[in-house]
Amino acid sequence: MANVAKKVSWSGRDRDDDEDGRAGETTPLLNGTGPGAAGGVRQLTPSSFLRIGQLSNVDLNEDIHELQTELPRQRPNEIPHNEKLLSLKYESLDYDNSENQLFLEEERRINHAAFRTVEIKRWVICAMIGILTGLVACFIDIVVENLAGLKYRVVKDNIDKFTAKGGLSFSLLLWATLNASVVMVGSVIVAFIEPVAAGSGIPQIKCYLNGVKIPHVVRLKTLVIKVCGVILSVVGGLAVGKEGPMIHSGAVIAAGISQGRSTSLKRDFKIFEYFRRDTEKRDFVSAGAAAGVSAAFGAPVGGVLFSLEEGASFWNQFLTWRIFFASMISTFTLNSVLSVYHGNAWDLSSPGLINFGRFDSEKMGYTIQEIPIFIFMGVVGGILGALFNALNYWLTMFRIRYIHRPCLQVVEAMLVAAVTATVGFVMIYCSRDCQPIQGSSVAYPLQLFCADGEYNSMATAFFNTPEKSVVNLFHDPPGSYNPMTLGMFTLMYFFLACWTYGLTVSAGVFIPSLLIGAAWGRLFGISLSYLTKGSIWADPGKYALMGAAAQLGGIVRMTLSLTVIMMEATGNVTYGFPIMLVLMTAKIVGDYFVEGLYDMHIQLQSVPFLHWEAPVTSHSLTAREVMSTPVTCLRRIERVGTVVDILSDTSSNHNGFPVVESNPDTTQVAGLRGLILRSQLIVLLKHKVFVERANLSLVQRRLKLKDFRDAYPRFPPIQSIHVSQDERECMIDLSEFMNPSPYTVPQEASLPRVFKLFRALGLRHLVVVDNRNEVVGMVTRKDLARYRLGKEGLEELSLAQT
Amino acid sequence: MANVAKKVSWSGRDRDDDEDGRAGETTPLLNGTGPGAAGGVRQLTPSSFLRIGQLSNVDLNEDIHELQTELPRQRPNEIPHNEKLLSLKYESLDYDNSENQLFLEEERRINHAAFRTVEIKRWVICAMIGILTGLVACFIDIVVENLAGLKYRVVKDNIDKFTAKGGLSFSLLLWATLNASVVMVGSVIVAFIEPVAAGSGIPQIKCYLNGVKIPHVVRLKTLVIKVCGVILSVVGGLAVGKEGPMIHSGAVIAAGISQGRSTSLKRDFKIFEYFRRDTEKRDFVSAGAAAGVSAAFGAPVGGVLFSLEEGASFWNQFLTWRIFFASMISTFTLNSVLSVYHGNAWDLSSPGLINFGRFDSEKMGYTIQEIPIFIFMGVVGGILGALFNALNYWLTMFRIRYIHRPCLQVVEAMLVAAVTATVGFVMIYCSRDCQPIQGSSVAYPLQLFCADGEYNSMATAFFNTPEKSVVNLFHDPPGSYNPMTLGMFTLMYFFLACWTYGLTVSAGVFIPSLLIGAAWGRLFGISLSYLTKGSIWADPGKYALMGAAAQLGGIVRMTLSLTVIMMEATGNVTYGFPIMLVLMTAKIVGDYFVEGLYDMHIQLQSVPFLHWEAPVTSHSLTAREVMSTPVTCLRRIERVGTVVDILSDTSSNHNGFPVVESNPDTTQVAGLRGLILRSQLIVLLKHKVFVERANLSLVQRRLKLKDFRDAYPRFPPIQSIHVSQDERECMIDLSEFMNPSPYTVPQEASLPRVFKLFRALGLRHLVVVDNRNEVVGMVTRKDLARYRLGKEGLEELSLAQT
Repeated sequence: MANVAKKVSWSGRDRDDDEDGRAGETTPLLNGTGPGAAGGVRQLTPSSFLRIGQLSNVDLNEDIHELQTELPRQRPNEIPHNEKLLSLKYESLDYDNSENQLFLEEERRINHAAFRTVEIKRWVICAMIGILTGLVACFIDIVVENLAGLKYRVVKDNIDKFTAKGGLSFSLLLWATLNASVVMVGSVIVAFIEPVAAGSGIPQIKCYLNGVKIPHVVRLKTLVIKVCGVILSVVGGLAVGKEGPMIHSGAVIAAGISQGRSTSLKRDFKIFEYFRRDTEKRDFVSAGAAAGVSAAFGAPVGGVLFSLEEGASFWNQFLTWRIFFASMISTFTLNSVLSVYHGNAWDLSSPGLINFGRFDSEKMGYTIQEIPIFIFMGVVGGILGALFNALNYWLTMFRIRYIHRPCLQVVEAMLVAAVTATVGFVMIYCSRDCQPIQGSSVAYPLQLFCADGEYNSMATAFFNTPEKSVVNLFHDPPGSYNPMTLGMFTLMYFFLACWTYGLTVSAGVFIPSLLIGAAWGRLFGISLSYLTKGSIWADPGKYALMGAAAQLGGIVRMTLSLTVIMMEATGNVTYGFPIMLVLMTAKIVGDYFVEGLYDMHIQLQSVPFLHWEAPVTSHSLTAREVMSTPVTCLRRIERVGTVVDILSDTSSNHNGFPVVESNPDTTQVAGLRGLILRSQLIVLLKHKVFVERANLSLVQRRLKLKDFRDAYPRFPPIQSIHVSQDERECMIDLSEFMNPSPYTVPQEASLPRVFKLFRALGLRHLVVVDNRNEVVGMVTRKDLARYRLGKEGLEELSLAQT
Repeated sequence: MANVAKKVSWSGRDRDDDEDGRAGETTPLLNGTGPGAAGGVRQLTPSSFLRIGQLSNVDLNEDIHELQTELPRQRPNEIPHNEKLLSLKYESLDYDNSENQLFLEEERRINHAAFRTVEIKRWVICAMIGILTGLVACFIDIVVENLAGLKYRVVKDNIDKFTAKGGLSFSLLLWATLNASVVMVGSVIVAFIEPVAAGSGIPQIKCYLNGVKIPHVVRLKTLVIKVCGVILSVVGGLAVGKEGPMIHSGAVIAAGISQGRSTSLKRDFKIFEYFRRDTEKRDFVSAGAAAGVSAAFGAPVGGVLFSLEEGASFWNQFLTWRIFFASMISTFTLNSVLSVYHGNAWDLSSPGLINFGRFDSEKMGYTIQEIPIFIFMGVVGGILGALFNALNYWLTMFRIRYIHRPCLQVVEAMLVAAVTATVGFVMIYCSRDCQPIQGSSVAYPLQLFCADGEYNSMATAFFNTPEKSVVNLFHDPPGSYNPMTLGMFTLMYFFLACWTYGLTVSAGVFIPSLLIGAAWGRLFGISLSYLTKGSIWADPGKYALMGAAAQLGGIVRMTLSLTVIMMEATGNVTYGFPIMLVLMTAKIVGDYFVEGLYDMHIQLQSVPFLHWEAPVTSHSLTAREVMSTPVTCLRRIERVGTVVDILSDTSSNHNGFPVVESNPDTTQVAGLRGLILRSQLIVLLKHKVFVERANLSLVQRRLKLKDFRDAYPRFPPIQSIHVSQDERECMIDLSEFMNPSPYTVPQEASLPRVFKLFRALGLRHLVVVDNRNEVVGMVTRKDLARYRLGKEGLEELSLAQT
């Protein structure tokens, strides 16, 4: 199963166990004699951890990914994949600080000036994120431009040579082979080195910002593979864009810089140590994602809105302002470097990897009568988008079942590359649509069978990077394209793009969607112009833009951020209203049939993704029904052996443990005192923070927050901690390490209420208490993500260890 | 005191007691015999309400504005106004639904389809908000244009007449009288009818969105006065803009439409009853404010960001998308109507009341070398903005102390109007800056002493509505203005605008700020051009824009939203980066000296405004220290007399009461069971929802949610509820009306943690409990707003009943 899941899943964990150096270290509960384990050991009953509440069929089993050693598993050839499943293997990010004594002491020690320094550091990091993201985007752009240019020149020369003397099949072979071999390299590095770098990375970043930890998603290695992968995919002529991956790249850059170290490179720069926790890291990753969008589309505001739409639960003005800063810097960097590269230094008018070109509101204005037409285009976009997603859904299911070996994946990618080249070639070959070369903006005009001074117009669409094709469709003067050409192109490209998305290559779906939409939009505009006898307002470029928006909206279903991205990429504010209408219509129509592409893929991964609100009809459920029981609690002063046993219990890999005060006199369970995390306990055990039972009055070893930060985020598994038999009988005082004020809800709270608290504060554990403040259950992400609004009302997903 | 406070405060409540029909109805505790008050009365000890914890010097005293009857107070002539004060008179909005049994039953009854209907209604309301806001903006624009045109024509004819034959003092007299009389009307309606309509309304809306209920702020009457007031102020030639008030207008429209009734008009349309609660209303008001910004500046995205920046605590995708929809509709409506009005129907290229005109990136691009210059302009803007705010602060203090009678306020407004006209006239008169009339875009060219075919260039700035002057400064070709003219104009207008802000007229500060900035920015550009020997990149228009941004940023200190508003108003995305840098610099520099104008005025009103985060150095405070004690608790089954006594206790006007289960056997206080609001108790008492003590088994009267919604938002005061002596001995069962799962925090939680919970969920009451879930205190808005980061670290504001 793992083998199958790995290919589809973004983790590829199995392969990395050795790299992490843990798989071999499974020496649980060895009788080592640690520094804190001296004589005087007394027996303590195992009743010291409490199991409260009745056993339910659901196990509290948040994934303990970074902690647990992988066990070898059976690998079936086919898995029955079920979308009504929620995986237990994903860990949550903790957006809530564990406000324990150590933390409070540190915060209290820091004075106002020091906080200002921290704040300045945040800004510096954001500036660095922006600059680096911009530079990475430049790098991708320049390399793609040169390599693709080289490829097209070689193929063009070859075609030109063979057009005269016959034997164009050699040209086709050359083209297909070139594409396939480039894509092969791109696919191999992704499939064999870092599978999480496959695809656009947007679903992964959505999950991360939502609070789900996707393994390896923000590692340096992922970034390198992503960048190389996307260059090779685009150069390989696949129906992909280089924009989506920028978002992922930005996020990785942000995660790396903000932590001031790289685990992959084993370098710790000893800076920014204050930011080594989930809360801060996630904030920076938001900024990185925004910077990525900003660099990709020249849309700094769109980038901010993307990050907010996907990630923000709690809106914070300062954070948003910083995110915006990173976005702006990113666009500006890209703009400056590219302007220098293109020779017209200091002309900062081309922000973004894709630039839709100038839409002049005077030449291309719209009138109120066109609004219904735009809405109609939105409907078409919604339907076509839903079709795209449905096809891709079946394809993905097929891939999950049958194409799960890396080799097969590489072969599929090569096949797609060859087919894409072949389709393009055949289409160009069959097309008899010749256009005068003069005054056109085609980069590699293919003459083929056209008269001298003319070029094959189908080649503009196929014999070009998709970005350039989009801009051409937007801006070429009316009459540049034959309706037949556009129709055939739309049809072919639609299926190619659909087949391509989900391949094991690093590539985005934005540009192909825009291209499909622009093609049918332009076709629509031409038809309209024909129907209205060439009335002036039917400029095909304008309709190409609306078609592009409709198609993209129909596929990805983003709302506000996409509108703003489109507005910024066109540089025209007056187009905002029709674009919004088109996107809204496309979303409504599309949602009627099938989910958005990203959401679909997230669901296929069984990720416990939290939406904005609890399902509307879930008021009938209360915390009592959704919570997980029994909860493993710890006492404030606990026996080390008990702690080790609980942590080693693989049947219930809990990550958070309520700390309770059990009255020694009575058997009565007493109230909640705090919450402690597995990672904290691990660090405590590792540093031997405990005292002998006989000498409880002794002060146990003091730890600093730094000890916890150094271990973050890859805490060792419990099996790697050596605890001797003597040490097992020692006592550990959790008071100063536990969070003494965890958020709680009463059992009677309704699901929407629990959901709101959990989502708004970005929690990982929410303790359910009764009227006497006694722990009765625990709500974690998967308990909330399980409830979903299906076609027939509220439905509950089942949980599985896939 | 009240009299004084009223003028400054936005409430003007004192005046409205009669209107509300409550002041005369203070008949507390009358021995009426209500329907539920039959025989069999037993005595219940007053100990049935508990006072827990030690008495602190702070009284739990959230304002019960809508509930409490005003008592006549002494009115001193001067109040010692202290900015280190937090007023107790402001009530909080409750963004958290009271999830009691009635609510849950209703929500559970509603099926999926019904929820969809509710959702559709939300969209319809947003569309209506957008349309109406757009129409109101059109109305203001058209009326102002016509009236101002009329005025300028009359004055111009007069000046033209007297220039030749001498006696220009008559013209001055005419101009000043015209202005003063128009402003008098505008000031009278504001001062005597609805003082809350004074100013731009942005601070008030900021407070509302922050969760503070400002009396009368979203009433229909306020809207009418606001619209008329702003027209009269602008026509009266004051240094004001009509943009700020649009935000307030949009908010009022939203509040009105979403409730489906008008209390002012005493009409209830019986629609949208589902939305009659603070949560929903506040969401719609956000949309209204966004629509207002959108209509004012043609900046739909800026509008959304404004609403989010000011209001959002919990970001919700659907809500944001709806807000954006309202914004877009608003811009579109304005655009359509104005395009029809201006004759070029269906040309939708002029969105917004103010249109900065086309900034062509080709003609007016910027280079990287200019960035430091822009940053320098930001510094200048920050300093000038701080100066503006500091001056206005002293002026406001003066006004609070001495100009608190409506008559005086009207006189001051007239004086300012006359002085503005005089200054303008003198400046024009003294100016010898003549420009050729040909090719210029001046609406009312004053020839005065210029040669034929020329006009007085100072008149472009003064003899015009400020909006037009701004656009002229941005776009007039280089050489249109004499540096001397610009310098004098900046100086004069700076002081005039500063004097004008805070007058009892309805007017905004955006446009005057932009105008001041544009003037010195252009001057700066001219100097630069002179210094660099006319180098091409020193286009004065570009510098005027940056100056305008710097000045506005220095005064209002808005960040992201202002950047986006400026970007959208210029319609140029490439200017985003320098504008952001300028605004950021201006904010940093300005913040060093003094707060932003809006924040300053909010603070002068002693409003308990919650910022984004708790002060950074407040980790040393815990809930125990910030909470209010003692808390008045109610028992689940409580004696009616006790409830009435508690509600009538004017010394501690609590608004939320924890409901506890006190064990009848022991004296021990038992745990928290729920929370009930004053307004709910009032409705219960009004509907006589109680049973005789002897017949506790009897079912008490059932209420529906509708009963609570009908009373919303103006619940009657307790004094208007007649409870007979018999009824006092009845018992009331609060179980199904209380919120059984109020949010709680343990005593040990630090202030930032409490703050985060309170702010993120928009709470009004947060119960502090101990380890056994017993109530020990209550945290309300003012407990959190009290702590502020001053120059010397954390400071605590004192609370006062001002």
